[in-house]
Amino acid sequence: MNLSRSARGLRSSVFARLAERMKSLPADHYPLHIGDTWRRPPAPARLERIDWAQVPEIYRYSHPFGLSELLEAVAEKLRRKNGIAAEAEWVQITCGATHALFCAAHTVLDPGDEVLVLAPFWPLIPGVLGAAGARAVQVPCFDRLYRDPALDLRALLEACRTPKTRAIYFSNPNNPDGKVLEPHHLEALAEFCRDRDLWALADEVYEDYLYDGRTHRSLAALPGMAERTVTAFSFSKSYAMAGQRLGYAVGAPEVMRCLRRVCNHSVYNVSASMQYAALQALRHGDSFLEESRRLYDIARRVMVEGLSGRVPVPEGGAYVFLELGSEAAMWDLVHRALDRGVVLAPGEAFGEEYRHCVRICFTALPEEGIRRAAAILRELL
Amino acid sequence: MNLSRSARGLRSSVFARLAERMKSLPADHYPLHIGDTWRRPPAPARLERIDWAQVPEIYRYSHPFGLSELLEAVAEKLRRKNGIAAEAEWVQITCGATHALFCAAHTVLDPGDEVLVLAPFWPLIPGVLGAAGARAVQVPCFDRLYRDPALDLRALLEACRTPKTRAIYFSNPNNPDGKVLEPHHLEALAEFCRDRDLWALADEVYEDYLYDGRTHRSLAALPGMAERTVTAFSFSKSYAMAGQRLGYAVGAPEVMRCLRRVCNHSVYNVSASMQYAALQALRHGDSFLEESRRLYDIARRVMVEGLSGRVPVPEGGAYVFLELGSEAAMWDLVHRALDRGVVLAPGEAFGEEYRHCVRICFTALPEEGIRRAAAILRELL
Repeated sequence: MNLSRSARGLRSSVFARLAERMKSLPADHYPLHIGDTWRRPPAPARLERIDWAQVPEIYRYSHPFGLSELLEAVAEKLRRKNGIAAEAEWVQITCGATHALFCAAHTVLDPGDEVLVLAPFWPLIPGVLGAAGARAVQVPCFDRLYRDPALDLRALLEACRTPKTRAIYFSNPNNPDGKVLEPHHLEALAEFCRDRDLWALADEVYEDYLYDGRTHRSLAALPGMAERTVTAFSFSKSYAMAGQRLGYAVGAPEVMRCLRRVCNHSVYNVSASMQYAALQALRHGDSFLEESRRLYDIARRVMVEGLSGRVPVPEGGAYVFLELGSEAAMWDLVHRALDRGVVLAPGEAFGEEYRHCVRICFTALPEEGIRRAAAILRELL
Repeated sequence: MNLSRSARGLRSSVFARLAERMKSLPADHYPLHIGDTWRRPPAPARLERIDWAQVPEIYRYSHPFGLSELLEAVAEKLRRKNGIAAEAEWVQITCGATHALFCAAHTVLDPGDEVLVLAPFWPLIPGVLGAAGARAVQVPCFDRLYRDPALDLRALLEACRTPKTRAIYFSNPNNPDGKVLEPHHLEALAEFCRDRDLWALADEVYEDYLYDGRTHRSLAALPGMAERTVTAFSFSKSYAMAGQRLGYAVGAPEVMRCLRRVCNHSVYNVSASMQYAALQALRHGDSFLEESRRLYDIARRVMVEGLSGRVPVPEGGAYVFLELGSEAAMWDLVHRALDRGVVLAPGEAFGEEYRHCVRICFTALPEEGIRRAAAILRELL
């Protein structure tokens, strides 16, 4: 029986290849390969703290767009924190930011379209675009931006553009290397999209984790960009609730009318109880964000120092991205680290040009665990 | 800005048009338009009953396929209840059965493919197929089967088949009319799929609600069908937990390897906490199913008697499907019923040939509410 071309094109995760090895990890191990956190959600958003008997209608279908209080609260947050003039109709609650980007891809891309994907990139994005029949065109740039903040981003994109180019995708702060785009980078992206009439898929799931006094800026807040951008945000990342699977897509009402139908047809609606938990996080989570930023910042420094300056200091996000001398050297490190219980994410997941790199998550364990893992890695390097 | 062809092709629900009218419903109203239930999940599966502090890892990412205990429990259920020789690798936990069918469509269909959809049908299926670029070809049949159980189903399908036909879709028991396929109907479908090398998308979300001593039979249990069928099941329908958004897709490992990637790229994973609740329902929900069947059966009789024989007695599921004399007569009834607080689902959502019909859910309210709603409808007819 023939499967669909788009499904056959999807690759399984590079982690699948490590799965067998991971079964024999020492008891004392350091899972730094996944973008997760050791923290638990803000107390009012924890399932054991919510008085579920008092929350109405959690067992029935709820509105496909999202709970109206949550939509309103998210819109208010978008105006206040992101500078996006959003109302509730700009928002769709999704099953994590993955689902937000999946729905966005289905909404703005046709089979055969190309998307300029700023690399290194979030491992799932080629498959998310591929499931809509579109193709990711990799544009290596974040590592170059670390080396040269004055790099001409527009020229880089222009060189990869073809008549099939329909959109750009980037994450900011970037996964896997923590690069934060400067205002002039965002302006270059915006100008390119406006001039070439392209969509922007903006992955801003790490918006709450910028370090050294940096401020997050949303692409959709730039002139003329609200109507051509779909932005993905994540409760998972902001409030340590990856297990609840809650994110949201934001765009102008014309695109959201379509995106909401895609969302409705893909999952009908997102669990009302999980949305209720997210609402508590949004309402009561400000001090949690501050505390997480402080703790992640410490873990970041511990990891960077542990690797004694071998990585660019991440400006945001949850990872360092380490270059080795070759792909062979990378696999060698990955396997030797596994022997010591430290799990790393091999670079090929993040782009063709990054096969000699590994991604290391510094939010997956508390400071002491990061310190021990960093010491092991330093020894191995 | 141009949106994708597939997204533009998605229609919003027929209920959207009723939304304004529904804002002015009397306080005493009867929402019989949605496929929902007034029942609450089995006690051990209720969020307020679960000791969440004792459930590990609910805040972190979990395995994209599903929790391993749930996969094992589902596989055991499939062997025991459905006669499908499934192991855990046959199962993917999904965000409701909608998501299971969405992933199945993306896994087996290419843009331009046609799917023979047995009508009247579940309203979202044309959009679910459309999002994968495929087209639903409507094959009116369930109403004909009520009138003539000896109908040649194979000939009916054969007449609609073209070189583009890639799959069939049906729900059994059927939404919206409660028809249960007899063994010889299922054999005809299986033979057709085998002879014409087609996939089958089997929507069996109402498997637990058959009446008058009928037994559910899964298409995938028929000879040669396991490898060409993806079946969707639903905790929502079986255990009154629509709000938790949990279902699962079942197929042979070769197709599931691909489907699991689609699922992973669409939502990453399904909430671990909701999966834990589903596991409790599966483990402790047998008496709940019996009691629900008994109560729904009573409601079904009340509704059928209230409509004094104007509808075929549903053999399963949660609805009666009432034919009016014309589309105008249907809308007239829908609006007059709304004035009295009774909300019905207009027929066009269920197929081109069913614009003169309405779907009425008899599980949305307890017996007394169904009795009052039926009395109002009888008065209006």
